[in-house]
Amino acid sequence: MKSTTTFVIFTIFLFFLVSSAYPGAMRQRYPCKNLVLYFHDVIYNGQNADNATSAIVGAPQWGNLTILAEKFHFGNIAVFDDPITLDNNFHSPPVGRAQGMYFYDTKNTFTAWLGFSFVLNSAQHKGTINFIGADPIMVKSRDISVVGGTGDFFMHRGIATVMTDSYEGDVYFRLRVDIKFYECW
Amino acid sequence: MKSTTTFVIFTIFLFFLVSSAYPGAMRQRYPCKNLVLYFHDVIYNGQNADNATSAIVGAPQWGNLTILAEKFHFGNIAVFDDPITLDNNFHSPPVGRAQGMYFYDTKNTFTAWLGFSFVLNSAQHKGTINFIGADPIMVKSRDISVVGGTGDFFMHRGIATVMTDSYEGDVYFRLRVDIKFYECW
Amino acid sequence: MKSTTTFVIFTIFLFFLVSSAYPGAMRQRYPCKNLVLYFHDVIYNGQNADNATSAIVGAPQWGNLTILAEKFHFGNIAVFDDPITLDNNFHSPPVGRAQGMYFYDTKNTFTAWLGFSFVLNSAQHKGTINFIGADPIMVKSRDISVVGGTGDFFMHRGIATVMTDSYEGDVYFRLRVDIKFYECW
Repeated sequence: MKSTTTFVIFTIFLFFLVSSAYPGAMRQRYPCKNLVLYFHDVIYNGQNADNATSAIVGAPQWGNLTILAEKFHFGNIAVFDDPITLDNNFHSPPVGRAQGMYFYDTKNTFTAWLGFSFVLNSAQHKGTINFIGADPIMVKSRDISVVGGTGDFFMHRGIATVMTDSYEGDVYFRLRVDIKFYECW
Repeated sequence: MKSTTTFVIFTIFLFFLVSSAYPGAMRQRYPCKNLVLYFHDVIYNGQNADNATSAIVGAPQWGNLTILAEKFHFGNIAVFDDPITLDNNFHSPPVGRAQGMYFYDTKNTFTAWLGFSFVLNSAQHKGTINFIGADPIMVKSRDISVVGGTGDFFMHRGIATVMTDSYEGDVYFRLRVDIKFYECW
Repeated sequence: MKSTTTFVIFTIFLFFLVSSAYPGAMRQRYPCKNLVLYFHDVIYNGQNADNATSAIVGAPQWGNLTILAEKFHFGNIAVFDDPITLDNNFHSPPVGRAQGMYFYDTKNTFTAWLGFSFVLNSAQHKGTINFIGADPIMVKSRDISVVGGTGDFFMHRGIATVMTDSYEGDVYFRLRVDIKFYECW
């Protein structure tokens, strides 16, 4: 019997040695936390200084800083400080700010690249969530990376699914962000 | 006795199966490595080309490239290559360079967004550390994410606490960065 | 014998408790996935609008948007949408697009900072890979961080080794990217 016990123990030992060495091997894809938020972007067009939450700060040679450029806005960089709300109403009380940048990066369709943070400060959530990723705008639902967080989101990682919930010409858009954390600490 | 042993083994097995599947569950918040560094930013203002370590490269429509813009510098992007030192003395021998960008992203207070790397090359540390995050400048101590590293910091993740250690008008600032790694490999 | 068994079990238990608490402790540096890809950048110079895959969208005060600036292009930001190929031939069928930005960030040598995504869409790979990091261009082989991924690269992390495979003046360069994932999920 002793040898049986030893064998079983050794097997378990090996099993965990291997699973630790290849940390990806056993991970299951269940989110440990989930969050759905909306943010609202009003871009400065030269006439809406009071309402604008973002502004063009970089443009290609054929562009300028108040009108999004030709060729699907290729090369336009916008910096933003957008209100985050729990629902899709621009006038709902904000629970934080989405702060960062996006830039348009294709000449034959609308795509963007995002680098930004959610800075949350409400009764429910205090902390920041950091995102980067490609945003193929014309696709209904697209995934970007949650690469880190602080405060309530200390060291978190995950995937954020971004959907364009609404837009009005080139001036306003609203994104729905469905954040699924898979590493929660 | 055999059944007792089996039961204990099975319990341990289950325990680790669960803890592997939910990798966040058991993690403790003790840093596996800690590093305190300073970096120094001298922004180009049209007259300090020799000393400047950073320059404005993007601005909103109401700004320009030698004076930080009105409205709390909203929309100004700066690219930097700043010396890193072990203490708060600008003239200490640098142990590396902080390279990347920051941009101001609020119209009613000073906040920035950071995307940069520490490129360390000294007797103690060789490698890079990559950071992104929101920087609410007026807050004394603010946290950003360490999202990866190379060399001595291979695959590391953590939290960096940033403090404004000193500043002189719009031309110079010094940041103290207290890096706590929680994943070290 | 019972006490021996108990002791062994307890030791194993402790071992894994500790290794879970300090997740870095046991990790081995074997890639769980490896990928070698090339991407090709043709920068807009005012005359190659049809072929250009990138454009200067930010420049320091001494620069402009069609010629890379003096002082080692310090401060130039380029946005790109570059074809990705499996080999070093610009005319090979692309397997995806490299989308993002780079900016030059040193005044006395060529270095850049990269923030971009691989958007892969081929028979072999569907999904995105997100990168950031410092790129000391004059060094033969330099490492940046893979900070996340989606689709086939769900939650992946790793290191990408970047090499300049070819370049033609300031207009064209080709990068070889050797991606090693160490977290695969």
